[in-house]
Amino acid sequence: MSAQPLHIVFALYPGVTHLDFTGPHQFLSRLPGARVTVACLEGGEMAADGLTFAGLTAYRDIAACDLLCIPGGFGATEAMLDAVFIGHIQRLAEGATWVTSVCTGSLILGAAGLLKGRRAACHWAWRDQLALFGAIPDPARVVRDGRYVTGGGVTAGIDFALTLAAEIAGDAFAQGLQLGLEYAPAPPFNAGRPETAPPEVLARFQALYGDSMPARRAAAETAAARL
Amino acid sequence: MSAQPLHIVFALYPGVTHLDFTGPHQFLSRLPGARVTVACLEGGEMAADGLTFAGLTAYRDIAACDLLCIPGGFGATEAMLDAVFIGHIQRLAEGATWVTSVCTGSLILGAAGLLKGRRAACHWAWRDQLALFGAIPDPARVVRDGRYVTGGGVTAGIDFALTLAAEIAGDAFAQGLQLGLEYAPAPPFNAGRPETAPPEVLARFQALYGDSMPARRAAAETAAARL
Repeated sequence: MSAQPLHIVFALYPGVTHLDFTGPHQFLSRLPGARVTVACLEGGEMAADGLTFAGLTAYRDIAACDLLCIPGGFGATEAMLDAVFIGHIQRLAEGATWVTSVCTGSLILGAAGLLKGRRAACHWAWRDQLALFGAIPDPARVVRDGRYVTGGGVTAGIDFALTLAAEIAGDAFAQGLQLGLEYAPAPPFNAGRPETAPPEVLARFQALYGDSMPARRAAAETAAARL
Repeated sequence: MSAQPLHIVFALYPGVTHLDFTGPHQFLSRLPGARVTVACLEGGEMAADGLTFAGLTAYRDIAACDLLCIPGGFGATEAMLDAVFIGHIQRLAEGATWVTSVCTGSLILGAAGLLKGRRAACHWAWRDQLALFGAIPDPARVVRDGRYVTGGGVTAGIDFALTLAAEIAGDAFAQGLQLGLEYAPAPPFNAGRPETAPPEVLARFQALYGDSMPARRAAAETAAARL
């Protein structure tokens, strides 16, 4: 276990899904030497799915970090096209030891040109769009490719955080986090993946979110064309 | 699936563990008819493990709710003894259809006199203290006893939320939440319970937190004596 300083930045943007970062935050903020900055473009406050997060730092006030984590969310569609935001992601990623994402946060890493030729995870429903950025979509719940560690959709952020904690602080430390946060999952259903969800549940998801797919693909194509 | 109004209150207090409520919030706020209030004693802002939550409502400004959820945290020790806070919990619980907690939030329900003769879950390390309030400690990850639904430690809040979502909106709706939030957990270790954690990991937990056990037990005894 190292007690070297570990500056972690969670990179928020409008329309982020809060559990994508609150889950990893609860685990990673307990790492030895951890100092955590939660950031958004202008700093201050940001609403996410009905919760409001305050005390955020503006990207321009962050010189560097050791671990960059980009959560996902419906707002990733717009975030991919925000050149100022993407510029900060590129700048912070450059000096980071670990460049990471949860859920559709990997599309943002892709839009920043950081995943070319790399395997990456993503929320199952948008995973294929990683290929637009030259990334290799990987259905695993947590994917490590060099300094890039990515997690699948939303709750995968917890498996992602435990995996990353073990890489940084060792297995025993990560297991201590797991015990303290009682992570012994026991879902009442087995519907967390399209392969296991009942067909009518999958159909309802497509009916609810299918309309947003073309807009996100178009945004990803536009962002990819800029690379 | 019902679209009846469902007013959900998450009851915060100083020293709450944020994942105890952000996990359930991400799931339960998507229930049909849901309106969510995140509350603390004076309203405004509250820090929790390095995140700051803003826009909170004061308990005195909440007339009633349908679902009350009390997260856990190290601050539960002091919260059990806060007569004003406990008074609001008792008042809101009285009219609620569902009275719920995650982690050591069940000790607060106990301190409010709400769990006498009832089975309840709790974080494994403090579970036995439920008996001080006449509750029956249950090692299950999610426990339902009538209108009381309680979850185990921290991450159990997600299994708790899915179980509760199914009770309120039906299995298919809950499965849709599970699919959308990709809850197909795959922990890299099996250390989330004292029965499965390596002995040295369990020993380190006891060394880190053992000192806080007598203080919390004393608080629980004091709170129980007031009932």
